[in-house]
Parts: sequence; structure tokens; C-alpha cells
Amino acid sequence: MKCDLLIVNATLLPEPGRGELQDNGYLAITGSKISDLGPMAKLAGNVSGRQIIDVQGNLVMPGLVNTHAHGAMTLFRGLADDLELMSWLNEHIFPAEAAFVEPEMVYWCSKLAAAEMILAGITTVADGYFHEDAAARAFAEAGIRAVAAQGVIDFPAPGVPDPVENIKAAAEFIEKWQGANPLITPGVFCHSPYTCGPQTLARAKELCRAKGAPFFIHVAETGQEVAQLEKEHGLTPIAFLHDLGLLDRDTVCVHGVWLTDADLALLEKSGAGVASCPESNMKLAAGLAPIGRMRAANIPVGLGTDGCASNNDLDLLQEMGMCAKLHKMAAGDATVLPGRVMLAMATAGGARVLGMGEKVGALRPGMDADCIVVDLARPNLTPFYNQETLVYAGRGSDVVTSIINGKVVMAKRELLTFDLGETMTQVRRISRRVKAAV
Amino acid sequence: MKCDLLIVNATLLPEPGRGELQDNGYLAITGSKISDLGPMAKLAGNVSGRQIIDVQGNLVMPGLVNTHAHGAMTLFRGLADDLELMSWLNEHIFPAEAAFVEPEMVYWCSKLAAAEMILAGITTVADGYFHEDAAARAFAEAGIRAVAAQGVIDFPAPGVPDPVENIKAAAEFIEKWQGANPLITPGVFCHSPYTCGPQTLARAKELCRAKGAPFFIHVAETGQEVAQLEKEHGLTPIAFLHDLGLLDRDTVCVHGVWLTDADLALLEKSGAGVASCPESNMKLAAGLAPIGRMRAANIPVGLGTDGCASNNDLDLLQEMGMCAKLHKMAAGDATVLPGRVMLAMATAGGARVLGMGEKVGALRPGMDADCIVVDLARPNLTPFYNQETLVYAGRGSDVVTSIINGKVVMAKRELLTFDLGETMTQVRRISRRVKAAV
Repeated sequence: MKCDLLIVNATLLPEPGRGELQDNGYLAITGSKISDLGPMAKLAGNVSGRQIIDVQGNLVMPGLVNTHAHGAMTLFRGLADDLELMSWLNEHIFPAEAAFVEPEMVYWCSKLAAAEMILAGITTVADGYFHEDAAARAFAEAGIRAVAAQGVIDFPAPGVPDPVENIKAAAEFIEKWQGANPLITPGVFCHSPYTCGPQTLARAKELCRAKGAPFFIHVAETGQEVAQLEKEHGLTPIAFLHDLGLLDRDTVCVHGVWLTDADLALLEKSGAGVASCPESNMKLAAGLAPIGRMRAANIPVGLGTDGCASNNDLDLLQEMGMCAKLHKMAAGDATVLPGRVMLAMATAGGARVLGMGEKVGALRPGMDADCIVVDLARPNLTPFYNQETLVYAGRGSDVVTSIINGKVVMAKRELLTFDLGETMTQVRRISRRVKAAV
Repeated sequence: MKCDLLIVNATLLPEPGRGELQDNGYLAITGSKISDLGPMAKLAGNVSGRQIIDVQGNLVMPGLVNTHAHGAMTLFRGLADDLELMSWLNEHIFPAEAAFVEPEMVYWCSKLAAAEMILAGITTVADGYFHEDAAARAFAEAGIRAVAAQGVIDFPAPGVPDPVENIKAAAEFIEKWQGANPLITPGVFCHSPYTCGPQTLARAKELCRAKGAPFFIHVAETGQEVAQLEKEHGLTPIAFLHDLGLLDRDTVCVHGVWLTDADLALLEKSGAGVASCPESNMKLAAGLAPIGRMRAANIPVGLGTDGCASNNDLDLLQEMGMCAKLHKMAAGDATVLPGRVMLAMATAGGARVLGMGEKVGALRPGMDADCIVVDLARPNLTPFYNQETLVYAGRGSDVVTSIINGKVVMAKRELLTFDLGETMTQVRRISRRVKAAV
């Protein structure tokens, strides 16, 4: 067994939610790829990894895929809780963004988000924000895999004071980052169908098609949004996107809470995926995304944390259990969204939504080496009869090691790629200005 | 400032959800009591605590009060997930309990629960189970404050093969533990109005009245229970308890999901409290407890984790945020159950439910010294604008020190009162027998 990094004595979970736990396994990484995995017996002492990690029976599984976040919004964590969504957005978040979002803020606050995510077992994130160039820099330095999407909105925005320039700014961002770093996939994130006009939406998607880049949009998040679109265009938000030709395999619909059967049929036919953010939808009382109906229609569905202003953490492990429990209660049926479905959604399901299903989200030879080690010697994970325990009793802090693209980026809960203390100091410094202003 | 233990440089939160954060504070503990607290300036260098803990700006607040748990059920964590409540109970939990619950199991598995709770910032727990004597021993050794209630049920039960003996067993338990240990308050836990007959319920409450002991009962948890009680007695579960004279200030109604206005009026008049267990109720699809209506009626309401077979962890910090978000979504109103209400419920509110409102749940001179230190230098708690951040972004693992009854029982996330490794080894040993049997 020749490889660069060999993980031994692992409880392997190569395909969470689909396959079973495999005791006494190994995982071999060569360069940035998984080169082999199997039972320890197969190694037969013939071991020559350049680096060997003995995980002593702990769980080794694919890293989690966070299909929706606004990393830089760590700055606004807890700034405006317990408020109605439109008041939260218009009276608190938009003004705070107008006052404080600039490249340095995006850089440090995205870096804090990267730390929080890596420490919680997230190895891929789909991020969308303004000054996304600074976010992409932060993610690249942190060593987290990111689909980084430049924010587009038809209002004066941070970095793009004149909305006429918003597509140009997105094009420059894609130009700069496409192919520049193996961890970073640039894309475009249109805020929503109520903050971007039809022409902007069409031009943004056209740019994405020309560049082969992913397109994201918040859509069908609230009943209010649906009412507004119906009034202005006589269409549901999804039908509106469909009419503009925006729905295809490279489009990710974020939230997708208020969906009619016709909307689901449009999504199914188009191949577009959905990023469901249950904790954000709960906290802002947006509503309950019909995950069961989406899955029945074979629409790709992943799990997202959303930004820290509306969740308020970036803990996808915990979000799995929250999502399952919420749907059980809403359905009055404890058998819906079982733990395994959540595990699959948070790994391979999310990868499929981001068009990365062949690349990450499972441990298979040839796939990119994104994996995490979960400490099974925690009281909250004892005993560990099966993988569902991770969903219903696990939390991000149970993850002890994180490997992304073949590189160990976190070990023993210490980040290895950058100085987290410095980052927190910088975020606190900026947060004091925010506090003084509100 | 003379005292036994002096905590300095604290961000104090003496009354979570009511008062505000106080920067640069100290807390003095003398024996088992809080003797003083205030701003560091007041100390003026005049410091003579026998032990001094410099928390370097971290948060110091009262420990959390878990109003409902079955500690020993850590053994059944993850044994039967994603099942309908009655199938879960009758086909999985009751048979597993019949096969595996004996004093040694209760001792080790309650000790594991104590560890998990202490490590998550819980300093008081109301526990109910069979062989509760073994649980009380485990809690006393772990150094956690416990209202330990002996389980009563009208079926053959672990330790009480003949139900005719169930009140006698409870009486012996109370006799043994009352006044025996400052941390342990013995009580009685009747399983439910559908598993205990009227005579058993009346005799159990009579015993509690005679001894001044608290009385617990699962009640109005599911719609099925309500239908059964209506059919058999023509009464709602709460009205049934009221008719039997069971409701008073020393009774805790666990769950209280399905409550009519008349039930709420009965509860209000009686002074009985409610232990709400939202994660358990979600996971088993039991329903949504009307916390808002209970609070409006001034019914004491606390938060409980329930046992690990139905939650599946014992993390009350996380449960606060979950509860708030759930109620926001259910009400379609993001302003209901604000973070501060959750903080108050999980501390002073829970203490009030357990009749301990003058003793624990706040940091005031003369109260028992139960407090925790939360690490504010965690990425998920940065920045920390206000106490709500604890509710929406905190998790149990952010607690770094725990003091109960004036004694440091956990520091730097290490338990100081017993060997956690040994306890986990013992629980795993028992869990292998369970796994082999199912």
C-alpha cells in the first residue's frame, strides 16, 4: 500500500445513509485523491504511507457539503434576532451590510466562517456574497473547498455602487478565479427574484452558461415573496425563473419553501437542485420546505446552513437532526426523513446539488480526498449502535480531524491552515464598530 | 474579599434572559453558596479566595436546569430511531428495558448521562427511572444536583416485578435518600395516566405529600393518549389528574403537549409546573407544547431533554435554540419565544418548576453555587454581541467549567469527579449485550 496519507484502524462510512459502517478499515490518499480503501486485513502489514494516521476506531466519513452560506455574515451573528424576516432584512441586515461590507470585512469574516465550518466537519461550502473575491481568497487560504458565487442585486451594493455594473463585476470575478485554484469554483449568486429584475437574471444566467459556472438564487423563501411575484408577474417564483430560462442542472434554488406541484414538476424537468436551509427557515418563520415531495420527484436536495445572521451557526451535523425532527413533527409522523436520508443529503446529496457528485460526498477511489474523523469516544456518541446516532446526537464539535483535497487542514480540533486567533481578533475589532453603530 | 472560590475577570450573566451581561465581574463562593458578586473594581485588589479562577473574559452564568431526563437510557441511545411513538415504546423500549435494566446498568448509564450533562452545562437534573437508587448513587458521585424520582408503573417493572409493591419501593427509595446527600432530592415518577391506574396515582401522590417529595408524570404527550383517557374516563389527561387530586405546586407535568384551555386553567390554579421536551416531542412526532399559552397563564415552564432514546442527546443549550426556532416556525411568527425567554426557561424557569427557584437558576448571594463558564473565544460564539448568541449559536461543548454546590466538577472540559473513561467502557460493555440481542 503506497500512498501519501494512510488512515488506519477506522470505522469507515464511505457512503453515509446508503452503505453500512465498516469496522477496522483503512483509507489511502494519494495526492489530492482517494486511492484505495478497505478492511485492515487487506493491508496485511504492507503499509508505506508517507504519513499514517491511526484513528483508533474513530469514524471516518466524507466531509459534509454545505449547499448554502454567506460566510462573511459571521459579523452579523446575533445582531438582530427574533425579528420578522422583512423587518430583519430591510431594517437591520441591509443597512448593516451597506455600512460595513468591504473587502477586508469579507476576507476576515469569511475566514472565521471557514474555521467554524472546518471545525464542524464541513469540507465543501457553496458561498454567496458581495466582494466574493475576498471570500474566495479567505476560503483558499483556509483550505476549504468552495463554490464561491459573486452576489448580484439590482440595488447599489458593496463593491458595485451602480447596479448597471453588477454583471460585469460577476464576470470579472469568474474570469479571475476560474481554474486559478483547485479548491475554488467561481459562480454567480443572484439575491432573489424580488431584488433582481428579469434582465439582470437573464444576463447573469447567460454569463454562467458562457463560462460553465453555477448559478444560485434565493427563491420561494416566504409567502410574501410568492404574493409579490404573483402580483407583479402573475407567476410563482419558480415559474418566473422557468419563463426566463434560468432553470437547468447548473442552477441551485436556495430555500424552495413555497412550492406548488407545478413548481416541483418544473424543477424535476429542469434538473435544477434545491438547497434547503431548515434552521434559517425556522428562525425567520419562513416556512417548511417540502423535502419529502422534492425527494419523491427526484429533485436533487442538499442541506445548507445559510448565513450566521439567520441560523446563527454553521453546524451542518446538528442541522441534520434538526431537519429530521422538524419534518417528523410537521408531518405528525416520526418515520419521515429518517436519519439515513439526512446523512445522504448532507454529503452525496449536497454534492449532487452543486454538480460535484462525482467529485466529493463519498469515499470512493478516484474521488477528491475530502474526509473527516469523528471522535466516537464522546459521551454524547456512546454507545454508537449505528450511523443514525451521528444525526440525532452528534454536533460539529465531535469532529476531530478534517482532510480536504488530500491535505490535513484540522487535527485534534486545531486548525492547521491559518491563525484562528488572529482571525477572531480581526472580526472582534470590526464587530466593535458594528456595535457602536447600532 | 474572603471566600473559598473566587472567579475573576468574568462576563457575568447572573439572571439569564432577565438581566444584562456585566463586563469585568467577579463571583465569590463560600462553602456551597454564592457569597458575593459584582464588578472587579469593587475588589480593588483585595482578593483572598482560597482558590482563584481567572476566566479571562469568558461568560459566567447559572448552570442549566434540565427538568426531565431518564439518565440510564443513554444505553438505548440510537437503538430505535425514526419510529412511531407507540411502536417505539411497545416494540423496542419496553422490551429492551425488561431485558437490560438492573441496578448496575442504571448506575453506569446514569453516570454516563451525568457526564454528558455536566459537560453540556447542566448542573441540575430531574431524573426518573427504575432502580432510581442506583441513579441517585451515580448522580451523587458525579457531583450533579438531581431530583431523582423512582419510577412507578402498573406493570411488572425492573426491580419491582409485582406492581403491587411499586408504592412501597418508592417509599423505601425516599426514606433512604431524603436528607442523605445535599445534592439529591428524592421523588416519585409515575410513568403516565395510561400505564398507572387511578389508585396507584393517588397512592403515589399521597406518599409524596406525606414526605414533602416532588411528583412527576408524563401527561398529555400524544393525541392517542388524550383519546384513550377520554374513552376510559371521559376526561382529558390533565382533568383526570385534577380529579384525582394530583395537581399542586409539587407536581411536575412532563410534556403537556395536548392541552385545552380548560387544562391550562386547571394547571394555573393548581400551581403545577410543566417540563417541556421539544426535541423529544419532535423526534417522536408527539406534537407541539403550547409554551406561549402556558407562559401567558403564568404556569411554570421549564425545558427538558427527555431520555437519550428519544432525543438523542442531553444538550439543553442546543435545545434552547431548537425550541425557539420550532415555535417561530409553527406560529409563522419569528418574534415568538425570543432567545431571552429560552434562557430564562432553561435556568430560573426550570428551577421554579422543580420548586428550587430560591436555591438555583440564578447567581445571587445566598443561593447554592451552581454555575458554568462558557468559552466566548469559540468561532461559533464570535462575535458575541449579546446573550441571545448563546441560544442560537451555542452548543453544550462550549461550556468549559462547571461548578455545582460550590465544587468544581469539570474544568477545561475534563470531568474531575470520576473516571469517564471507565464509565464509557462499562456502558459499551453492556451495549454489546444489547446489540447482540436486537
